[in-house]
Amino acid sequence: MSGNTFGQLFAVTNFGESHGPAIGCVIDGCPPGLALSEADIQPDLDRRRPGTSQFVTQRNEPDTVEILSGVFEGKTTGTPICLLIKNTDQRSKDYGNIVQTFRPGHADYAYFQKYGIRDPRGGGRSSARLTAPMVAAGAVAKKWLAEKYGTTFRGCMTQVGELPIAFESWEFVSKNPFFAPVADVSALEDYMAALRKRGDSCGARLRVSASNVPVGLGEPLFDKMDADIAYAMMGINAVKGVEIGAGFASVAQLGSSHGDSLSPAGFKGNNAGGTLGGISSGQDLEVSVAIKPTSSILTPRESIDTTGQSTEVITKGRHDPCVGIRATPILESMLALVVMDHALRHRAQCGDVVHSLSPIAAQA
Amino acid sequence: MSGNTFGQLFAVTNFGESHGPAIGCVIDGCPPGLALSEADIQPDLDRRRPGTSQFVTQRNEPDTVEILSGVFEGKTTGTPICLLIKNTDQRSKDYGNIVQTFRPGHADYAYFQKYGIRDPRGGGRSSARLTAPMVAAGAVAKKWLAEKYGTTFRGCMTQVGELPIAFESWEFVSKNPFFAPVADVSALEDYMAALRKRGDSCGARLRVSASNVPVGLGEPLFDKMDADIAYAMMGINAVKGVEIGAGFASVAQLGSSHGDSLSPAGFKGNNAGGTLGGISSGQDLEVSVAIKPTSSILTPRESIDTTGQSTEVITKGRHDPCVGIRATPILESMLALVVMDHALRHRAQCGDVVHSLSPIAAQA
Amino acid sequence: MSGNTFGQLFAVTNFGESHGPAIGCVIDGCPPGLALSEADIQPDLDRRRPGTSQFVTQRNEPDTVEILSGVFEGKTTGTPICLLIKNTDQRSKDYGNIVQTFRPGHADYAYFQKYGIRDPRGGGRSSARLTAPMVAAGAVAKKWLAEKYGTTFRGCMTQVGELPIAFESWEFVSKNPFFAPVADVSALEDYMAALRKRGDSCGARLRVSASNVPVGLGEPLFDKMDADIAYAMMGINAVKGVEIGAGFASVAQLGSSHGDSLSPAGFKGNNAGGTLGGISSGQDLEVSVAIKPTSSILTPRESIDTTGQSTEVITKGRHDPCVGIRATPILESMLALVVMDHALRHRAQCGDVVHSLSPIAAQA
Amino acid sequence: MSGNTFGQLFAVTNFGESHGPAIGCVIDGCPPGLALSEADIQPDLDRRRPGTSQFVTQRNEPDTVEILSGVFEGKTTGTPICLLIKNTDQRSKDYGNIVQTFRPGHADYAYFQKYGIRDPRGGGRSSARLTAPMVAAGAVAKKWLAEKYGTTFRGCMTQVGELPIAFESWEFVSKNPFFAPVADVSALEDYMAALRKRGDSCGARLRVSASNVPVGLGEPLFDKMDADIAYAMMGINAVKGVEIGAGFASVAQLGSSHGDSLSPAGFKGNNAGGTLGGISSGQDLEVSVAIKPTSSILTPRESIDTTGQSTEVITKGRHDPCVGIRATPILESMLALVVMDHALRHRAQCGDVVHSLSPIAAQA
Repeated sequence: MSGNTFGQLFAVTNFGESHGPAIGCVIDGCPPGLALSEADIQPDLDRRRPGTSQFVTQRNEPDTVEILSGVFEGKTTGTPICLLIKNTDQRSKDYGNIVQTFRPGHADYAYFQKYGIRDPRGGGRSSARLTAPMVAAGAVAKKWLAEKYGTTFRGCMTQVGELPIAFESWEFVSKNPFFAPVADVSALEDYMAALRKRGDSCGARLRVSASNVPVGLGEPLFDKMDADIAYAMMGINAVKGVEIGAGFASVAQLGSSHGDSLSPAGFKGNNAGGTLGGISSGQDLEVSVAIKPTSSILTPRESIDTTGQSTEVITKGRHDPCVGIRATPILESMLALVVMDHALRHRAQCGDVVHSLSPIAAQA
Repeated sequence: MSGNTFGQLFAVTNFGESHGPAIGCVIDGCPPGLALSEADIQPDLDRRRPGTSQFVTQRNEPDTVEILSGVFEGKTTGTPICLLIKNTDQRSKDYGNIVQTFRPGHADYAYFQKYGIRDPRGGGRSSARLTAPMVAAGAVAKKWLAEKYGTTFRGCMTQVGELPIAFESWEFVSKNPFFAPVADVSALEDYMAALRKRGDSCGARLRVSASNVPVGLGEPLFDKMDADIAYAMMGINAVKGVEIGAGFASVAQLGSSHGDSLSPAGFKGNNAGGTLGGISSGQDLEVSVAIKPTSSILTPRESIDTTGQSTEVITKGRHDPCVGIRATPILESMLALVVMDHALRHRAQCGDVVHSLSPIAAQA
Repeated sequence: MSGNTFGQLFAVTNFGESHGPAIGCVIDGCPPGLALSEADIQPDLDRRRPGTSQFVTQRNEPDTVEILSGVFEGKTTGTPICLLIKNTDQRSKDYGNIVQTFRPGHADYAYFQKYGIRDPRGGGRSSARLTAPMVAAGAVAKKWLAEKYGTTFRGCMTQVGELPIAFESWEFVSKNPFFAPVADVSALEDYMAALRKRGDSCGARLRVSASNVPVGLGEPLFDKMDADIAYAMMGINAVKGVEIGAGFASVAQLGSSHGDSLSPAGFKGNNAGGTLGGISSGQDLEVSVAIKPTSSILTPRESIDTTGQSTEVITKGRHDPCVGIRATPILESMLALVVMDHALRHRAQCGDVVHSLSPIAAQA
Repeated sequence: MSGNTFGQLFAVTNFGESHGPAIGCVIDGCPPGLALSEADIQPDLDRRRPGTSQFVTQRNEPDTVEILSGVFEGKTTGTPICLLIKNTDQRSKDYGNIVQTFRPGHADYAYFQKYGIRDPRGGGRSSARLTAPMVAAGAVAKKWLAEKYGTTFRGCMTQVGELPIAFESWEFVSKNPFFAPVADVSALEDYMAALRKRGDSCGARLRVSASNVPVGLGEPLFDKMDADIAYAMMGINAVKGVEIGAGFASVAQLGSSHGDSLSPAGFKGNNAGGTLGGISSGQDLEVSVAIKPTSSILTPRESIDTTGQSTEVITKGRHDPCVGIRATPILESMLALVVMDHALRHRAQCGDVVHSLSPIAAQA
């Protein structure tokens, strides 16, 4: 109820602060009998972790996950799975100068007003570091969905700042630090290098999709598949916009061209983005998100302090100049958690039936 | 859990089908002591109801609301408020031709696969008619929020199909059937008339905002104010995209300009759209949504029937050529329900304190 | 959250007041495809309804149920089922004398302090009349469970006031107004007649059980099958105690005799009452409840009024001298709702598997 | 949803197994600003921990709690509080003989059927050891309630096996290992010594109460204060019965004597046990529970193995011969968690108002 649990039947309760002793989560509702060890989870955490290139925060954190419960002799038992990640590189002194002031665009001000108290070390609870346990939980969901339905998830960056990134191939995504689907990322490197030199930050646009999603997942009125995806994505730090399928482009489309035709072989397009009436159609889920520029920058900004007086704020310390760069694994995990939860909800009400998949997906 | 209840502390459970005996909702959690009668609710229903202009469905439905419980001698008692709207104009024969086929872009196919059964009359449960009870519930939330905090809600259309609508003034919104913030809507009328003649439909873009929202509402991790807004908006029929504040424009912004500066007098901009770190900042909540073109159109479309065979589909009957036209009151209500729920959640954890509001809001 | 919804996956939201226009409920999560009409529900309502003998309230209310949604062509569609029962016999003037005073043992005082306002007509929301929608919802659950697993529910009265009722046979239960499992109820009639003459009321003890409950339902830690049964039973008006299986008798038992032995043919006793570690064992669920004497009696009582001054209270009007007499159908329904919810929860996590039943149940 | 979270607004998610690396919980929803350290929690854990007398299990476990999150500079921040207790004395070899067989009266059989897999080490998830994190969470609730309302909790043993324990004084409870409210516990010691010698176990009856509970807590229909107490108590390992106030004795009471009279100075009795219509009345909450005899005993029992064949079971290892002996702190904590949750729920709906307390409580 205080918003630290994601999902209803595959419920992930997240805890921890950026610079506290540990962060982690408890997964409640995982089906029993899934083979699971830390080795299933660590790779996704490694894809997200800081310190891996010059374009992300230099905080060096191994983010090693430990399974504290819910697994016996290598298999899930159906009881809660606690995943713990100890914090090891907490350079808290970097943040001393922001305790009494509010960074423009940062959660500082709102937290202070809400609770009357906040943990300022590394952003405390508002840090994007808290996405790490979700990436870990998402890895568990991904594994179960892959084994049960063959469902897969992938994402990439489609724009950084003002630079659009034309899609070339999924194969390139894992070969550069940007998760960009292009062979040559030198333009991106130059853009980011210039930005960093100026002490500024920029936004990004990312795409995430899921294939082989069973037909019929999602609830009809409020917990629509697309509504829950929007909730999941907009809940990721710095996200300011979410589109499903054609998204904002659908405003200018006509009904005669927007609706994806059906043939006996499947759908003939994917303006829907994989969901009709809030329920998965068997088309690929296709989601696009906008990520705003980081608020912790070296450029001085006009602000106020906790007493309401005018002041100027500069954020020193280690920060991502574009949080979108490391966000792809996070988007994949959150999408996997949404699909997982709806897979369990569907079989609660409708039984353990998987309807025929419609094979024609959006063109990459 | 099956997705028919919206909200956690101000929980609205929606029931009914387009052509069943009645639709309605049960509000659980309304604070006691609020003066309430049907007259507080009917005006918003009247703003949304069909049959009011040539640009919306000609279904003629008075949508008269009855309060069945939860009010005693004109005041809420703290117990569930059941709101009932009887269906009176159910011209079901119009839909006979769509029972065995799936409309491209419509929920038909997904419902059929999910449940193995569906009520096809007027779209059954997937009809946008089910937003009427939410407008009714939203009116209750609006009234309580207005009395308690002075919070107000308003919305307008900002684009219809390919036609952008430049903002002139809020005062015009109630003076035309499009909820357009412009004095002269003749271009919109011409556009819609041409579309209707062709038997086609189009999308729309709408804006909705809230002023005088208390600072500190929203939860830090998952039930962020913006995440819950995205969930609420994307859950409205036909919505394909949601933006908060600068939205997708923030991708190309720099951190030095995106973050809204603070001064002792308040914020100096509203790229945030009223939420920082998922928590309301006191700035106006600013939301933009994309609505896709209606799938029920007179233009013939390629599709399949329930046996998987190829067929052609034409939708006769009464339909909105642009569902965005009547959507403004729905957006306002859903936004009000989100704010209401978070207002109650906030005082559960943090007590009944209203923090100082930040007066400088986004420019209209 | 405000406590008007029962169950999580088969969620029943109850609304209404004793003397308002209507009472009812919305069932969310019913599996699709169940054949359902009012005729499936009305018989249980008739078993519970008032005015059927001289030992229950003379309020004469047909309690006719209407299905407003969720059923199409005689089958459930998976969408919310709204069940409405109109109030027809609201003799409100009977209650005028209790508006300003608090009946000892009645909810009056607590409601007044909680909400600062209450609907006093017939007890308003605190009336046992609000169990009628639960009986209706329970009938839906019973039907699905019977068809899916062969699960059945039955209950009886085992003590009224100081008179214990020795179990003779289930067949007698439906043949007397007390739901007593005995052929001759003349002693009960005499007891109740004498009580009524004195203007007093008495308590009762009831038993309810379920047979053919699938093994494995219930959650391990908090939502244990027995915990949820205790919650359901203690939530029924006037219930003050709940036992599962051996109940309070287990205090004086030894471990060597309490634990039910297992043999290849099943369990050899049922001290467990059908649940081990909170999970159904396949033994019959066996529950016993204590119901307190009605607080609305003709005997004058010392009390206070809403200003805190001393006063004397007599309750006129029509009341049950022993609410336990009509409670058996309520207990059955609440037990059915608990089992139903856990059946859906179980298949969400563990799939649609029914484990072998253990045939040896408690001796009647 | 899988039953590992207790409470809705003060939500405690429990994780861990008896012989895994650690057990613990995450508290979500704790109000910010509460002074909190491990020293506030450890004393209650010490009251519950094993190895403290010859009448409880000899497992020697310090049960040291660590706060991993949610506290900054000694105060709660409003974010999740993770409490971790490492398992240190896991003598797993003791349990080897029970992996393939089912103990009569134990959760073994039901877990195996539910999940198809179970962690048998020390009872795994079904171990009463999992109450330790609830005692820890309860200590946090107790502290907040004491500071906010002056609410206090206490409990004692009232019967062990066949021996009733007459109440002498609360002061004796902390002076003997039985939590017995009597000066001389030699009879209890003799009884337990004899039982242990026979390799058998016995049940117990306990009482728990709360004073200075604000009036008006609890929801009117399903989440009644007493229903939630019954749920909480029946969810504790081995509990088979729960009474509120007069409990089963109310069956034979008359309405004219059961209902507690009110005077301007407060209530004149406490048959209600502190709740009227499910809402706290200001009287002391008074709860009584029945605890069954332990199923892990040295006496040989008839049972079956996992292949369904007949076998005989003896449980070696370290076990409590009467789990009721250490249960008092658990009951107090669970009661505190119920009151805490309802305190937050009440202020969500009705605001931060504490109604006048009714000073006359039940006689000790």
